[in-house]
Amino acid sequence: MTTKKILPQITERIQVAKSRLFTIEQIDLTFSNGEKREYECLAGKGRGAVMIVPMLDKHTMLLVREYCGGTHTYELGFPKGLIDAGESAVEAANRELKEEVGYGANNINLVHTVAMAPAFFDAKMTIFLAEDLYAEKLPGDEPEDLELVPWPLADYRQLLQEPDFNESRSIAALLLVKDHLGGIL
Amino acid sequence: MTTKKILPQITERIQVAKSRLFTIEQIDLTFSNGEKREYECLAGKGRGAVMIVPMLDKHTMLLVREYCGGTHTYELGFPKGLIDAGESAVEAANRELKEEVGYGANNINLVHTVAMAPAFFDAKMTIFLAEDLYAEKLPGDEPEDLELVPWPLADYRQLLQEPDFNESRSIAALLLVKDHLGGIL
Repeated sequence: MTTKKILPQITERIQVAKSRLFTIEQIDLTFSNGEKREYECLAGKGRGAVMIVPMLDKHTMLLVREYCGGTHTYELGFPKGLIDAGESAVEAANRELKEEVGYGANNINLVHTVAMAPAFFDAKMTIFLAEDLYAEKLPGDEPEDLELVPWPLADYRQLLQEPDFNESRSIAALLLVKDHLGGIL
Repeated sequence: MTTKKILPQITERIQVAKSRLFTIEQIDLTFSNGEKREYECLAGKGRGAVMIVPMLDKHTMLLVREYCGGTHTYELGFPKGLIDAGESAVEAANRELKEEVGYGANNINLVHTVAMAPAFFDAKMTIFLAEDLYAEKLPGDEPEDLELVPWPLADYRQLLQEPDFNESRSIAALLLVKDHLGGIL
């Protein structure tokens, strides 16, 4: 098993399309064995994103149901958002929690950092576990109040069966937190 | 808790950028409370994707280390790929398994279907568990042979700590399969 890999050389990088939020680049690559390929890659704006698993009490998570433009559906998942300029990830997590669910957290800890689709998209998200909540609402940029959905962590298998609980990052967050808290359930 | 949501109306949909693989659209939305927003959404080509968790034996998963253009790094994860025209998801899973790791599976079962980022990207991936493997190599479009990395399922926590095991869909697949097979470990 080789663990030291020689990265392919990027011989050209061309911007092929651009919108307000996204840039699409074509990269020309030469692999260490001489093979050449053209890949397309996406870059977003921004400084990364956060997702928060808020615990209302030791046994109950808090999810939100929110409109998703990519699929034109309402989807159930954990609160999340982009990191603003000048913010740390943990500050962004606490702000999003206050905006989307109306709570702050006295205790907020990193669970894991995940990548979305490294094959073509360099987007990272940091997942936090938020405990010891207190009521505090901040105005956000949401077009409508999000529906709050409490869910017992012990019923995570039922959550996985919900037809609108689909996002891989929410599924990863659920199972990482379940694994993390498993010993104290 | 309301579960019947009124979807916002899409009042306009404009293509704002396009590349070989991706299309970026702007959608103008009016929410049921009258609020208006402009969202950007991405559409890929294609018929969805598959990811496969191959079990070499009852206790050992098989991962691959593959170059990722989006992050310009080698990443550890489960074999995956796009569904070709005319293929079912399970046929795509078996083909990718043969191309990327050199095995077919006598026993291949759906674990879960996940969405990537429904807020702005309508991309779905079906995760399969592949068991009872047999050696069969198909030529693929990979620029180089992928490094195969066997990993004991019982050591999943060490895998989560690996610095190149980052993709949320691989993390979700790992923990879903661990949960699924948990009873027989």
